Amino acid sequence: MSTALVILAAGMGTRMNSDLPKVLHTVAGAPLLVHAMKSGASLMPERMVIVAGHGADLVTAAAHEWDPAAQIVLQQEQLGTAHAVAQARPTLAGFEGDVIVLYGDTPFIQPETLERMAEARHSHDVVVLGFEAADPGRYGRLVMQGDALDRIVEFKDASDQERAITICNSGVIAADSETLFSLIDAVGNDNAAGEYYLTDIVALARAQGLTATAVTCDETETMGINSRAELALAETAFQTRARALAMEDGVTLIAPDTVFFAHDTVIGRDTVVEPNVVFGPEVTVESGARIRAFSHLEGCHVSQRAVVGPYARLRPGAELAEDVHVGNFVEIKNAVLDAGAKANHLSYIGDAHVGEGTNIGAGTITCNYDGVMKHHTEIGARAFIGSNTMLVAPVKIGNRAMTGSGSVITSDVPDDALAIARAKQEVKPGLATKLFDMLKAKKAKRDKGAE
Amino acid sequence: MSTALVILAAGMGTRMNSDLPKVLHTVAGAPLLVHAMKSGASLMPERMVIVAGHGADLVTAAAHEWDPAAQIVLQQEQLGTAHAVAQARPTLAGFEGDVIVLYGDTPFIQPETLERMAEARHSHDVVVLGFEAADPGRYGRLVMQGDALDRIVEFKDASDQERAITICNSGVIAADSETLFSLIDAVGNDNAAGEYYLTDIVALARAQGLTATAVTCDETETMGINSRAELALAETAFQTRARALAMEDGVTLIAPDTVFFAHDTVIGRDTVVEPNVVFGPEVTVESGARIRAFSHLEGCHVSQRAVVGPYARLRPGAELAEDVHVGNFVEIKNAVLDAGAKANHLSYIGDAHVGEGTNIGAGTITCNYDGVMKHHTEIGARAFIGSNTMLVAPVKIGNRAMTGSGSVITSDVPDDALAIARAKQEVKPGLATKLFDMLKAKKAKRDKGAE
Amino acid sequence: MSTALVILAAGMGTRMNSDLPKVLHTVAGAPLLVHAMKSGASLMPERMVIVAGHGADLVTAAAHEWDPAAQIVLQQEQLGTAHAVAQARPTLAGFEGDVIVLYGDTPFIQPETLERMAEARHSHDVVVLGFEAADPGRYGRLVMQGDALDRIVEFKDASDQERAITICNSGVIAADSETLFSLIDAVGNDNAAGEYYLTDIVALARAQGLTATAVTCDETETMGINSRAELALAETAFQTRARALAMEDGVTLIAPDTVFFAHDTVIGRDTVVEPNVVFGPEVTVESGARIRAFSHLEGCHVSQRAVVGPYARLRPGAELAEDVHVGNFVEIKNAVLDAGAKANHLSYIGDAHVGEGTNIGAGTITCNYDGVMKHHTEIGARAFIGSNTMLVAPVKIGNRAMTGSGSVITSDVPDDALAIARAKQEVKPGLATKLFDMLKAKKAKRDKGAE
Repeated sequence: MSTALVILAAGMGTRMNSDLPKVLHTVAGAPLLVHAMKSGASLMPERMVIVAGHGADLVTAAAHEWDPAAQIVLQQEQLGTAHAVAQARPTLAGFEGDVIVLYGDTPFIQPETLERMAEARHSHDVVVLGFEAADPGRYGRLVMQGDALDRIVEFKDASDQERAITICNSGVIAADSETLFSLIDAVGNDNAAGEYYLTDIVALARAQGLTATAVTCDETETMGINSRAELALAETAFQTRARALAMEDGVTLIAPDTVFFAHDTVIGRDTVVEPNVVFGPEVTVESGARIRAFSHLEGCHVSQRAVVGPYARLRPGAELAEDVHVGNFVEIKNAVLDAGAKANHLSYIGDAHVGEGTNIGAGTITCNYDGVMKHHTEIGARAFIGSNTMLVAPVKIGNRAMTGSGSVITSDVPDDALAIARAKQEVKPGLATKLFDMLKAKKAKRDKGAE
Repeated sequence: MSTALVILAAGMGTRMNSDLPKVLHTVAGAPLLVHAMKSGASLMPERMVIVAGHGADLVTAAAHEWDPAAQIVLQQEQLGTAHAVAQARPTLAGFEGDVIVLYGDTPFIQPETLERMAEARHSHDVVVLGFEAADPGRYGRLVMQGDALDRIVEFKDASDQERAITICNSGVIAADSETLFSLIDAVGNDNAAGEYYLTDIVALARAQGLTATAVTCDETETMGINSRAELALAETAFQTRARALAMEDGVTLIAPDTVFFAHDTVIGRDTVVEPNVVFGPEVTVESGARIRAFSHLEGCHVSQRAVVGPYARLRPGAELAEDVHVGNFVEIKNAVLDAGAKANHLSYIGDAHVGEGTNIGAGTITCNYDGVMKHHTEIGARAFIGSNTMLVAPVKIGNRAMTGSGSVITSDVPDDALAIARAKQEVKPGLATKLFDMLKAKKAKRDKGAE
Repeated sequence: MSTALVILAAGMGTRMNSDLPKVLHTVAGAPLLVHAMKSGASLMPERMVIVAGHGADLVTAAAHEWDPAAQIVLQQEQLGTAHAVAQARPTLAGFEGDVIVLYGDTPFIQPETLERMAEARHSHDVVVLGFEAADPGRYGRLVMQGDALDRIVEFKDASDQERAITICNSGVIAADSETLFSLIDAVGNDNAAGEYYLTDIVALARAQGLTATAVTCDETETMGINSRAELALAETAFQTRARALAMEDGVTLIAPDTVFFAHDTVIGRDTVVEPNVVFGPEVTVESGARIRAFSHLEGCHVSQRAVVGPYARLRPGAELAEDVHVGNFVEIKNAVLDAGAKANHLSYIGDAHVGEGTNIGAGTITCNYDGVMKHHTEIGARAFIGSNTMLVAPVKIGNRAMTGSGSVITSDVPDDALAIARAKQEVKPGLATKLFDMLKAKKAKRDKGAE
């Protein structure tokens, strides 16, 4: 059976108090919308339709960044969820199969849950996702009759007996495309808000003799985000789960609460992550590495037994081979460090390749930007870059070459050569004391003048 | 009605186990005493009297730093709260109006609460602040008769019925100045500790036919600090509230528990604060900025759309205009960066002005200190400071000027000029390998000698 | 009475999902095994025997690092706890006195608890350590008859009445050596797992008319580690306790949850530790110091009134005298800084001695490594090291000497002298603008070529 996803992402999210459309606020480094798209993508849908409204341009850009094939439809006025889904109808013209409606502000629905919904469609015309609520509060309740979903009752319309029900309506719904849109045609807006509610299709389906059922999941999966406080809670929920999974996978987290993963972080077994480490998107760490305290990694790869930090920043394009050491106050960007290379102190290595076993001295900087363009630095294997070497790119340092500490290297250095650019040291006996005395006298005079 | 505050701040705070007077321990970057002064100041008091004792010199200095007009009186011996208030009497001679007694170790009383106390004074002679205790434990209980406060009962003297009362005595009290001091005259010290208790004035007032009432507030407001553990709890209470307020105001805190605000931090809407950021006192951040992970800000201003960090340190006097970028391992102190200026890596910019759109290369240092005095560095607009440039202040770099990487700049550089101070690069073929071999031989010899 | 410890450390720890033997995973910077050894060492045992199995070589090395006198015996097959203890028998031949059996994965048993067990041995033949369990779950229960331990009942064999018992078996046991091994001889393996259980010696002892009793302790003491999640919980338990103790001792922790201590950290009274500080092993901080945010300390000593950080990294061998300041992005390794010395910005000081009152300018680096060996840098008192000075070790800077900013210092500088190694600054009017124009033209051409 083919599947199409319709993801509702038109809301403004007034309670976010933000200029950014709600679904573009991020959890674990990815917009809420992308989390929803990723969940849905697990079903291998033939089509993915995003219903955008507020900030549609930004929403479109974000959706296409993650999936260029996603189709965006515009909901000009926000007249309710059924109206939102209806906007996808022209785009889905000709599509035959199941439609699953997801929400751009509900990031945590698990693939397994959607698979269970798809499965339930084999036996029922409409499938609703319910969640078991610890405190059902004012959520709509799912009234079941055995296996069948009899109806969805809004809290305000519910009897005491119905209010005692703890399975609540998540809003996620699946039905055959033709069925869905024909039911939506019948949805009215005769309610306080004057909106067209997707939820109403269950009653309409039942009235037409169609069958409905519910699949239930844990409350954390259907958590929707409506404020920054809820966004922070969602982040915590994500992180708690990611930390537990990492530990199960054999990663040591010395202080799990201080480690922040992105939605796509991958870490190998027996890697140790010390306190206060932040992983941005697109990071992979192999097994047996050590990520020391106060490190920040984004878009990078760390190989086996590499040691990163403390206070190391790996930016996109950093690739550390086996046994590489990147130490404190070192930034690596778009640079490959071959096996056993070391950059242990106060350095910036950008747009570069560092050969095997090469040692980068403290204070080394690849001067990769000339004010207009970026240039590449190539350093060979087993080279020794002296402290505070400026490598003015484009420049090439040979294998086993050496640079003198404090040198500005502007032209290539052949294999095995020493390059040095250094003024001769002069020593002026007694001059330090004389200078200090002068400065102190000057200050005394200035201070006196200030009286 | 005029108001005078009397803030009791004489205690040693034995349980703090500290040489520092208790009220000078800090929460959110301000001494406890200053929090109490700030609370009271919301009433626009005509007079503010601090009763100091232990560490009176330090207490006086701290009080005057926040309010130079605060009057300090000395309580030589600590003979109880009534005795402490009595010390303020000579200083308040001639003052007519209400006196409110606050405590220097009770930092969180809200302005609204004090306003309700002032309001209640219109109808009653003495007003006591009570708090609703989740666990009343051994606190004194407020025995009410309808609207009136009948008496305050100490726990040890309370009947079972009185112990069931959950409104407890905070010690904060308000009365007309003349009434207050005349009641204090009547307070005795016939109790186990031999101390004069301010609380006793309620019973004395009632005995004289005066009226009393209580205003109640949340327990967190009246939280007093007696140990470092309680100090840490107070810090947490402050931070929890500040984080929630920031999120309501439209600030994204990715990991609220890892962001630390000062008592006066101001952050604009749609600014994102990443994990592990510390705000010291006197920081303002405009809207739409991004404060990246591991940043530390004190006494600085960050304008719209500026990006700070990760690992950026902004020290007092740092002013970042719109779209400024301050990156990793960069320290900014007493320096103004105009719109769009960038200092992205490993730099120290102190006592400086950086013009619009100027790029500060990695490893740049303003050499602002000559060992005796600090000097200013002036950098024009759209300049390009090469990596590892030393700017020996006082020095001036013109608009659109450029410095060569690795240069020590000691004299001014005109607009549009290039300044360079660099030794010529020499390349010595084969010498690196030769040197390594020599060093290895030397080491082998040394190691052999060590056997 | 002499005491011998037997510490069981042979298990693989399958649930750790690790190549590292379970007992070598660390809490607070020390392997679990070392925690157990430290607990036991408080009894001043005459002998300490570690029963190793999985990863015995690594376990042996770790044990000997902490106590070179520890004796290691090998348990080739893991046939149960009684079998494990039996492996220690040959090694303890000739030893007369008490044997206490501890577990290498149970790090938190307090010295006082072991002393109580030793004490209880005066009156009973076998002493078992029990713990009061909040949720006894499937632990074995200690069935007491007054003071006497009647038997240990496994959960599966327990009656409802026995299951109601909340004192559970920790497995820690003490008995006279001869008694212990003779009882172990009688232990059988007629059970589901086919293992020899040490616990069985209680029933055997009772059957022989010997007496047994139990000493009980808090559940946190007997916490055993079986997974990375439990390892993280143990770390939290350790840290929670260490933070509370530090605060009781008069240390201010602004945000206790963000400060991580090692097992042996010592911090003086009235020292303030700001948020996000990590202490590795072997750190001592005297009183009145300030450890600022984002600092990382290992193997170092910080004296009174010193200020460290923010973003300071002190590595092993760093010794800071009174009033030393080490500031942001500064790394100190194997270096002594005398009173009042300052290294405030972006520096690496390694293998060095810095004299009293000396100022180390921003960007200073001790070039201590020549690619083969490490060398020492000696800096005198009241010297002034200019910004970005490279000190090429071995090198000696005299008292009151000064180095020019940006100098590479390769030979010694006498007292009072100024050393400078600097190229002359040249200014080329208009050249910056010309260069920019050229670069822009080049880029435009390149971009066009890329079309």
